[in-house]
Amino acid sequence: MIVHLKKGITKKEYDEINEYLLNQDIKVQDISDEKDSKLLLSGSFDRSLLERIYSFDAVLDAKKIRTPYQKVLKINNEKKSIKLPYNNEINENNFIIIAGPCSIESKESLTKIAIEVKKAGANFLRGGAFKLRTSPYSFQGLQEEGLKILHEVGKKLELVTVSEITSISQIDLFIKYVDIIQVGARNMYNYELLKELAKVNKPILLKRAFSATIEELLLSAEYLAEHGNTDIILCERGIRTFNEDIRNTLDLGGVIRLKELTFLPVIVDPSHASGRYEMVPKLSKASLAAGADGLMIEVHDDPLNALSDGAQSLKINKFHKLMDDLKKASSIFDKKI
Amino acid sequence: MIVHLKKGITKKEYDEINEYLLNQDIKVQDISDEKDSKLLLSGSFDRSLLERIYSFDAVLDAKKIRTPYQKVLKINNEKKSIKLPYNNEINENNFIIIAGPCSIESKESLTKIAIEVKKAGANFLRGGAFKLRTSPYSFQGLQEEGLKILHEVGKKLELVTVSEITSISQIDLFIKYVDIIQVGARNMYNYELLKELAKVNKPILLKRAFSATIEELLLSAEYLAEHGNTDIILCERGIRTFNEDIRNTLDLGGVIRLKELTFLPVIVDPSHASGRYEMVPKLSKASLAAGADGLMIEVHDDPLNALSDGAQSLKINKFHKLMDDLKKASSIFDKKI
Amino acid sequence: MIVHLKKGITKKEYDEINEYLLNQDIKVQDISDEKDSKLLLSGSFDRSLLERIYSFDAVLDAKKIRTPYQKVLKINNEKKSIKLPYNNEINENNFIIIAGPCSIESKESLTKIAIEVKKAGANFLRGGAFKLRTSPYSFQGLQEEGLKILHEVGKKLELVTVSEITSISQIDLFIKYVDIIQVGARNMYNYELLKELAKVNKPILLKRAFSATIEELLLSAEYLAEHGNTDIILCERGIRTFNEDIRNTLDLGGVIRLKELTFLPVIVDPSHASGRYEMVPKLSKASLAAGADGLMIEVHDDPLNALSDGAQSLKINKFHKLMDDLKKASSIFDKKI
Amino acid sequence: MIVHLKKGITKKEYDEINEYLLNQDIKVQDISDEKDSKLLLSGSFDRSLLERIYSFDAVLDAKKIRTPYQKVLKINNEKKSIKLPYNNEINENNFIIIAGPCSIESKESLTKIAIEVKKAGANFLRGGAFKLRTSPYSFQGLQEEGLKILHEVGKKLELVTVSEITSISQIDLFIKYVDIIQVGARNMYNYELLKELAKVNKPILLKRAFSATIEELLLSAEYLAEHGNTDIILCERGIRTFNEDIRNTLDLGGVIRLKELTFLPVIVDPSHASGRYEMVPKLSKASLAAGADGLMIEVHDDPLNALSDGAQSLKINKFHKLMDDLKKASSIFDKKI
Repeated sequence: MIVHLKKGITKKEYDEINEYLLNQDIKVQDISDEKDSKLLLSGSFDRSLLERIYSFDAVLDAKKIRTPYQKVLKINNEKKSIKLPYNNEINENNFIIIAGPCSIESKESLTKIAIEVKKAGANFLRGGAFKLRTSPYSFQGLQEEGLKILHEVGKKLELVTVSEITSISQIDLFIKYVDIIQVGARNMYNYELLKELAKVNKPILLKRAFSATIEELLLSAEYLAEHGNTDIILCERGIRTFNEDIRNTLDLGGVIRLKELTFLPVIVDPSHASGRYEMVPKLSKASLAAGADGLMIEVHDDPLNALSDGAQSLKINKFHKLMDDLKKASSIFDKKI
Repeated sequence: MIVHLKKGITKKEYDEINEYLLNQDIKVQDISDEKDSKLLLSGSFDRSLLERIYSFDAVLDAKKIRTPYQKVLKINNEKKSIKLPYNNEINENNFIIIAGPCSIESKESLTKIAIEVKKAGANFLRGGAFKLRTSPYSFQGLQEEGLKILHEVGKKLELVTVSEITSISQIDLFIKYVDIIQVGARNMYNYELLKELAKVNKPILLKRAFSATIEELLLSAEYLAEHGNTDIILCERGIRTFNEDIRNTLDLGGVIRLKELTFLPVIVDPSHASGRYEMVPKLSKASLAAGADGLMIEVHDDPLNALSDGAQSLKINKFHKLMDDLKKASSIFDKKI
Repeated sequence: MIVHLKKGITKKEYDEINEYLLNQDIKVQDISDEKDSKLLLSGSFDRSLLERIYSFDAVLDAKKIRTPYQKVLKINNEKKSIKLPYNNEINENNFIIIAGPCSIESKESLTKIAIEVKKAGANFLRGGAFKLRTSPYSFQGLQEEGLKILHEVGKKLELVTVSEITSISQIDLFIKYVDIIQVGARNMYNYELLKELAKVNKPILLKRAFSATIEELLLSAEYLAEHGNTDIILCERGIRTFNEDIRNTLDLGGVIRLKELTFLPVIVDPSHASGRYEMVPKLSKASLAAGADGLMIEVHDDPLNALSDGAQSLKINKFHKLMDDLKKASSIFDKKI
Repeated sequence: MIVHLKKGITKKEYDEINEYLLNQDIKVQDISDEKDSKLLLSGSFDRSLLERIYSFDAVLDAKKIRTPYQKVLKINNEKKSIKLPYNNEINENNFIIIAGPCSIESKESLTKIAIEVKKAGANFLRGGAFKLRTSPYSFQGLQEEGLKILHEVGKKLELVTVSEITSISQIDLFIKYVDIIQVGARNMYNYELLKELAKVNKPILLKRAFSATIEELLLSAEYLAEHGNTDIILCERGIRTFNEDIRNTLDLGGVIRLKELTFLPVIVDPSHASGRYEMVPKLSKASLAAGADGLMIEVHDDPLNALSDGAQSLKINKFHKLMDDLKKASSIFDKKI
């Protein structure tokens, strides 16, 4: 940590800080030059020091210079591989496609969509059973019944299933019915939930909150990795900016940066990033070109009558077209679909 | 809802949209002029129509024109009053001060701080027992033990107690030990938690997420108000912006706007908004001047050794000074402390 | 325009608003329903009405519903083509590459870079002569001398030249020496400059300010189009968000949206968007995949000793590699390099 | 500067960086610990090194640790005083009020407003003559005629005049007619203009761009201070955030921070910050309470028919009421109006 001292502090103030630090076995090195007064701290201390040190009136500024997420950090260019049912694998060479409706509405409707998802060449089926809606007056999902439907349809068609968990109390249900447990953007900061999921032996799909920095996303992943399970898939889904014209701003630079910092796979959700199905195909191809490891796309056979997210769901025929385009492009970008 | 149609759409496209809407008993009025093609919809439909309507290729844009939170909306300038233990009341005329440490660390330390809080003239004691920390390696709170300490100290000194809940499973504990249940910024979008709290018969202090719009905050309050309990206190605590120099940007304009839109009381947390104790006194006075109904301030007798948020906690003597200043200023702004 | 009235206004207030509007020959239609009180205005009025109308205490809200940029708006899917020296053309089918150093440093160094740019297959040479630097102590450019060098090198190698103008007083110089005049992000709001450039008969490359909405960018383009010259190339170069980890957030969704709204070509500057050369290749390919019409890339033969923007300049060999990758990918995305 | 190296770099890479730096007489100190590899640089180098150093593949990160604005930096708590006509002075003890219409519309109308401004107790008259409008179709100001009117009215009523300059070519006119030259938010990054104004011997009112960091604002002030004239008044007027509900987000925390970092006076423009006159009084009082040195407020005798910014202009009677409230409150906050 670098501690920047104010100009014109007294010797007494200077000594107090030094004494405080030395008493905690922190090594202090004065690295001031003619313009600025600075201390370099090393040794063993936790993040709270960054806050406590400001209590000294003489401190102008303090900056940490050590990476706070060590368990999900890429060190020697290691590559992560996550094995999944039906011989699927998430790794550096594959570009995975997770597709399906926003909400599971009925067995019949999910089956219809899942058959097309499979036919188009995607191996992962998504579907929401517990919905978090901004308005208390919106459709809240089929709940346990929805998970059962997802499980059955996935098993029958040999599709890996993905669904979003919204509360600790649902964990047992998700272990029973779902292959990949999704933590939605709104729960990325729900550390109580993350702590419980750290104990679960299933891959976790962790979505970036629309307000989260890269570091915060990796710190949430660190919560999941706490007990050694690093079967974590990160998902960028757009961040909130002043740009009101589009629902969110897809941060592909963030995807590239994440791939530099961590060995975890990173996928993109172009449906939530844009909020409009018309933008999904182009954002999907851009994600492939930017080096993402896959996509999560909302698809519906009848978006006009979908119970949620109709505006951003691709119709079946447009999804087939997109899959064709992605397959053509993937070899150029050294990925296999 | 206003639906903006694209230029040059065909008559068939136009008719399809109209038919779709009429079939749902939605009244459609064509309000096009020479420059733009627009439909005005009225009747009974829910928010999902805003999404579904985009499925028509002919739709350029759709905007809702009705307020989605009806239970917390101010209509005839009604005034809210919330009665609390020890003859305290939150209302238009009072300016309440909630003060105390970020985390409860021990009975001894909390008592020491609480005595000073009381002496300074504040009637509400805050203290965290379940802490949500960005890093899994930070102090996570005393949990149930902490709540008990808070309860005892509050009772002894006749201070209304406030503490943050972080999970549904803690609700019974909070009902037993705490006077006002706080929903932290990170849980403002945790609708599962809000739905459960809607059934609880205690005042709720709802903090704005640092990424939340005014509308989203009011929609979360609407979740709480679902069963008719509108004993809700809103709290602005800074939003995330590009301005990296300060931890968050305190949005006093947002406070003013909230007071226009809802009858709920709105307080400010200047400690989290700034992240630095040095800024707290000025932001506190500015909040009073802007028309807020109170403050929540972090105070510690020994911030240097606090287990969390040391940087933003006021020392006791500075808190006394601030309270003196606020008392002097309050009459100018028609508030009573 | 839709004017939303407050609840519980008096008949007198209602009548005053109506009278005020009718006196200006504005047609007023009451489109209230049981929940909300609303007026729909039509006829001829300018944007200032949106501001003036708020002067009535009875007005809650007012929203314009007409597109304010008519000269750069795409109506019937028209396609823009801009003819340029040496048989170059910007149009729907081409993917143009503008490359070169941030600043022109000497004739020798520019020539060296330009030869490689040409060899790699790019037809446009960029180079800054008048530099806008955040700090007054940074290198400010070779000025007129720089433009002359750019002109000579461009002519010799048959490369279309692009340079940034920073002041009205430079217009004559730019007309003389430069093929495409660039308006930098910091000058997108400099309407005095735009008004003067509207009279110039050269293509203008207009960069989006890092704080600009899509509508503001199109309104700035409208200033340029004022006298009928719509030879305008828009350029997305990243927006400022809370995401401090990367210099700017490249908004590819914004590029897609722009292509929907306007017939103007839209290119991307991945160098400024990221601030780090390592991210440039992936962002470049993503831009191609997202449907952009070209790129502007900073290239330097010796970035280590560049006088500006060293961190984001690609070395020659990396630029060649990128051009190879783009050529391979372009046919997949129906573009010609 | 601290340079953070990547993990696992080779000795050769390490030596290359060191050699490069030493060759430029930069002192390098290895401050690595068991977890991270870091170099501390000192000596004489400019900001461009921060960019150039990234050209080494081995560099993970580089951070400057020296303040880049030395001429406007507060060092020993020095206090700035700016003397102005009619015995006015801007200093730590005064709270100045600049009031007047957005645009100067006619001599008659300006006089009418100015008389009220004076009567209410304000000593500074604002009025725009050259208007920067987002839309090319909005009113663009009375130009030179406007400045003359402002000059005459100011002289007659003994009010210090303030008006916004929008182009270098207007400088002579402003020197002749205006007491304080305002640089608007859109021109804060217009360094060509700032460089020319640095040579002018008049106080400059520099508004923060709605997208500017605190550091960028101070760097723009540094441009003005280049030749030693530090008669600069900074003005916060709201920043652009995701918060669409209000035009801008007033950053009072930024005001407090500026007052810590620089000796320059800092005032607030609550009219542009909110965009709605109804919010102006509360934001004004909050600014006083937060420690600002004054306000710039838009006032109009007939906002309904104002040619610009009607929505945010206070009517005369509301301005009188606000001035009364501010006078009452000012003594509490140790300021004189």
